Amino acid sequence: MNNLLLLALDVLGTFAFALSGVIAAKNRNLDLFGVFFIAFITACGGGIIRDLCLGATPPVSIASWRYLFVTWVAVFFSLRFKFWIKKLAYPIFLFDAVGLGTFAVTGAEKVLHYGGAYETAIILGVITAVGGGLLRDVFLNRPPIILEKEIYASAALVGACIMVAGNYFGLQEFVVTLVGAGVTFLIRYFSYRYKWNLPRFMGD
Amino acid sequence: MNNLLLLALDVLGTFAFALSGVIAAKNRNLDLFGVFFIAFITACGGGIIRDLCLGATPPVSIASWRYLFVTWVAVFFSLRFKFWIKKLAYPIFLFDAVGLGTFAVTGAEKVLHYGGAYETAIILGVITAVGGGLLRDVFLNRPPIILEKEIYASAALVGACIMVAGNYFGLQEFVVTLVGAGVTFLIRYFSYRYKWNLPRFMGD
Amino acid sequence: MNNLLLLALDVLGTFAFALSGVIAAKNRNLDLFGVFFIAFITACGGGIIRDLCLGATPPVSIASWRYLFVTWVAVFFSLRFKFWIKKLAYPIFLFDAVGLGTFAVTGAEKVLHYGGAYETAIILGVITAVGGGLLRDVFLNRPPIILEKEIYASAALVGACIMVAGNYFGLQEFVVTLVGAGVTFLIRYFSYRYKWNLPRFMGD
Repeated sequence: MNNLLLLALDVLGTFAFALSGVIAAKNRNLDLFGVFFIAFITACGGGIIRDLCLGATPPVSIASWRYLFVTWVAVFFSLRFKFWIKKLAYPIFLFDAVGLGTFAVTGAEKVLHYGGAYETAIILGVITAVGGGLLRDVFLNRPPIILEKEIYASAALVGACIMVAGNYFGLQEFVVTLVGAGVTFLIRYFSYRYKWNLPRFMGD
Repeated sequence: MNNLLLLALDVLGTFAFALSGVIAAKNRNLDLFGVFFIAFITACGGGIIRDLCLGATPPVSIASWRYLFVTWVAVFFSLRFKFWIKKLAYPIFLFDAVGLGTFAVTGAEKVLHYGGAYETAIILGVITAVGGGLLRDVFLNRPPIILEKEIYASAALVGACIMVAGNYFGLQEFVVTLVGAGVTFLIRYFSYRYKWNLPRFMGD
Repeated sequence: MNNLLLLALDVLGTFAFALSGVIAAKNRNLDLFGVFFIAFITACGGGIIRDLCLGATPPVSIASWRYLFVTWVAVFFSLRFKFWIKKLAYPIFLFDAVGLGTFAVTGAEKVLHYGGAYETAIILGVITAVGGGLLRDVFLNRPPIILEKEIYASAALVGACIMVAGNYFGLQEFVVTLVGAGVTFLIRYFSYRYKWNLPRFMGD
């Protein structure tokens, strides 16, 4: 049941991240391969960095068809039903927030299963959640949005910390996963809705 | 004989990719180290990502002098004989297409030898062929050309798929290598000559 | 004693590199997480690439609190005492040069301890020293400074070569470490002071 839940969240998060990749790539005059590449990197880049840092090779997202297939569905859907994408901006934001929470928590969880230290779990949990968005912006040659806009990585940080705390106190993993992903989702949701931001330090 | 052929193609491809790195770096006011770095990353970046994803550490291109030496020859040649480079634009394009085919096929081959899945072989075959060009553009701070221009990564994809199909059907590796690299070369050649492009999706 | 010296140099270098990350990030309107992320990548990015290439996972900088803590001190210090940062431009340059020398030498040393080849030690020594600065510029979406400005990577190259030569001739590691880091520091210092540059190849 834990596995089924994780799988569902994982697929949903991958789909949402891939969509955000397509939307970012669309205005750049990329060809079909370019759009697919950006979508895949956005969805799977964070997990690939995590797996490389863990020595878990090959990274899970290039070891099976699942992530390629989900990415392909996202690309096909968003190019075929352009009209819907605009209508679906809000659902896509929600999916993205779900992906953020899921990836932060499951990223940290995987590190702990591999016997990594708590600090490694927290860092790689955040990287799993935000690494794809970072790489998307690097390849699209623009400043990384997640380093600027509303609370994003910080929400993932909270989720990863909840996962590690739950592990430390020996709480049930299923519950901790849900709570961590849920809290991340809610922080992201409210920070977007109410325009919360971390302090900035512009050239002074 | 297979090994000798692969070695020759590998050196030729590395040389061509390094040249394309030098040419891209030349107009950026980089210093000598910068030019060498970009040339090396263009030639070897794809293979480095492949080897990291396979857990084949250290990556082969930093484990021997060969790739450094070939890169150095390319840098020396192109800075010393500037005049020739312009004359040689067409041969360099041909070398680059040879490199694309070779790297796609040998990249996929290496994954299969490491016991990787078919999907891993296909993805990393493409990455071996196009990763260097991607990293070159990232470090030169410009949008990745291969995501925009004529069929490039798609040609590598065909080559990697041929390699995997040949392995699946148990065909002789030497033949499959030649056919895969050859088909990739021809697709690239004709797409360049006749300006074939994948469909694009510019902001609509 | 060797270990204590290395630890001190390592902390000093990490601190200086993190400061240079903060200073580069400050004018980009990043939020607090963004500033911290850039500082951490600048300080630890080179070591992370080295460890991934060695298969030494997880990379040492995400396996303990030390590097996170030093980065945090650098971020806190530079945001809290903005006035000092300007006054301290020269000391920060000196720290940075110390970091360059230390990272080049200890990077090469780590590769040799892992049984890597001499060429691997030299390449990864340079990468350890300059990789963080490269990644900082990639994530800040600007052309990599170290590929353009005064002798920087070349100084690291000399340090890594000294380390490898010392190992080859069986000299005492403690002495070689000091000499290698010292020579790198001096080359960097004089090249900055007297505006030495490598030859450039601007669009001709």
